[in-house]
Amino acid sequence: MPIKTLHIGLGPIGAGVVRQVSSRKGFKIVGAVDIDPAKIGMDLGDVCGVGRKLRVKIAGDIAKTIRATKPDVAVLCTSSSLKRVVPEFEAVLKLKVPIVSTTEELAYPVRGNAALAKKIDALAKRARVAVLGTGVNPGFTMDALPIALTGVCESVTAIEVARVQDASIRRLPFQQKIGAGLTREEFAQKVIAGSVRHVGLAESIAMIADAMGWKLDKVTDEIEPKICERETSSQFLTVKPGQVCGIVQDGVGYRKGEAIIKLHMEAYLGAPESFDAVRISGNPALKMMIAGGVHGDVATAAITVNSIPKVLQAAPGLRTMRDMALPSYFGG
Amino acid sequence: MPIKTLHIGLGPIGAGVVRQVSSRKGFKIVGAVDIDPAKIGMDLGDVCGVGRKLRVKIAGDIAKTIRATKPDVAVLCTSSSLKRVVPEFEAVLKLKVPIVSTTEELAYPVRGNAALAKKIDALAKRARVAVLGTGVNPGFTMDALPIALTGVCESVTAIEVARVQDASIRRLPFQQKIGAGLTREEFAQKVIAGSVRHVGLAESIAMIADAMGWKLDKVTDEIEPKICERETSSQFLTVKPGQVCGIVQDGVGYRKGEAIIKLHMEAYLGAPESFDAVRISGNPALKMMIAGGVHGDVATAAITVNSIPKVLQAAPGLRTMRDMALPSYFGG
Repeated sequence: MPIKTLHIGLGPIGAGVVRQVSSRKGFKIVGAVDIDPAKIGMDLGDVCGVGRKLRVKIAGDIAKTIRATKPDVAVLCTSSSLKRVVPEFEAVLKLKVPIVSTTEELAYPVRGNAALAKKIDALAKRARVAVLGTGVNPGFTMDALPIALTGVCESVTAIEVARVQDASIRRLPFQQKIGAGLTREEFAQKVIAGSVRHVGLAESIAMIADAMGWKLDKVTDEIEPKICERETSSQFLTVKPGQVCGIVQDGVGYRKGEAIIKLHMEAYLGAPESFDAVRISGNPALKMMIAGGVHGDVATAAITVNSIPKVLQAAPGLRTMRDMALPSYFGG
Repeated sequence: MPIKTLHIGLGPIGAGVVRQVSSRKGFKIVGAVDIDPAKIGMDLGDVCGVGRKLRVKIAGDIAKTIRATKPDVAVLCTSSSLKRVVPEFEAVLKLKVPIVSTTEELAYPVRGNAALAKKIDALAKRARVAVLGTGVNPGFTMDALPIALTGVCESVTAIEVARVQDASIRRLPFQQKIGAGLTREEFAQKVIAGSVRHVGLAESIAMIADAMGWKLDKVTDEIEPKICERETSSQFLTVKPGQVCGIVQDGVGYRKGEAIIKLHMEAYLGAPESFDAVRISGNPALKMMIAGGVHGDVATAAITVNSIPKVLQAAPGLRTMRDMALPSYFGG
């Protein structure tokens, strides 16, 4: 019996999820919802670049669509912000449907989101279904993967993760989120406004700290622009020398004044070498490198799809990648 | 409340587990059992090289020790062979105590061990406790870790893992298990007798195949000697040119005639560079490398200890690293 999926949010990531679900065994797409009036009424395959009709008409109302289509699971890709997705979660959980979401702030609830996370946990438990926030980052490269590596350590004193990505192959919203093409001043303003940033370092730090049993006394999350030296372009935009070509972001977790979790991210157009690296200080010390890195857009959609069967097996409540079964590809 | 542990089997790995458990927060060692008459009656700390008395006297009888000490969990490090540990598992499970074991054949039941695995699963379910087989390999570097990496893939067509280790820093039984110091002829005889080999490639292949949903039509496991070119020594032995300094072992899983899982292991005295490498063919393709590798003895004891709190939370029955929560360091 294939797993019946409902897709809520059909931006680039949501569309990527639809493309993967529609091409893998083990799934049947039964419904899709978006708030964009231009998408409502259209065929899901057309909107998501599947290359064929999926014979699923995009709707605007979550509850109505669930009642009409009876999905086994909802995949929710609408916003990075936990606060913004709460009404959508309420609508889905009221009808007792489990959720896999790419909402970054749901990947691991930080202190400021504790009340919202508690609310979602309570709703999920009442509905007797599991809810999971996942993605490649947060959700894997800078948290679940380094945590899994510590599984072979008899002691861990510090964890450093570096993720460097050539952003020119990423989706347009990602390139915008990292400020590509802005002036320094525009970049600084957008950082203050919160529209230029990677959401997730605080979540990844909290996940690592809890997994290690570390009580942190301070967490910082700092953003700097990467300035373009040579003109560089992506499919979507061109950046001139002196303009911003991307972001350098550092998240640090301190315990007793010592930086014991360091997450370093660079994402900019024209990065010469993409990679994901983990360094664990402890015994044994571990130095892991993924040359070429893990492609963010494909991987975020993939880990979301791969998590679907696991969420159906998980205990009710708000789950995280820490307490889910080992990640793995799912091909039906 | 610390977790009360019972330690069964006090060879090098079992002793390593005791050293880690006794030095970490969150545990209290309440009992220890070994079959060696020379160890029975001695203090556990003395036998395991802890550097201090643990005030736990080593006993010879599992059931009696459990009744007297009421452990929360038993750590069982007695044999690679599932068949040989079944009586010990029966004794422990009859008294409803969960088990973490380094028995390699328990890391993932292969077809030939299906009946024994089923028996242990049934015993564990009747006792309402979980049983886990784990270790660094099998249990992590050549199975759980590559499987976890596929969690970010939208497709996987093949998985290759290479583990190369300088065996000169490993324990003596490991150096013997890889044939260091033998002549070619002795090596060949011991391979036939089954005393020179790494146990676990078939288990790792089965774990990967099941995780990927691949039905294999053939699994091979082939052993070759690594011949010493320059005299090389470890703490325990010296190998002369022309003698065997270690093992090269290849496990391959075939589907429709195609080698889709390839596990390559080299472990010999004097290997110039230890590493663990994973290559996943698919989308995204992934190339992971742990420079220096994961030290087998420390890591096997560590993943065993780190699994203890997870086994106490796991569903009853025979579990594997595939369905356990994400591996992680546990420091109490």
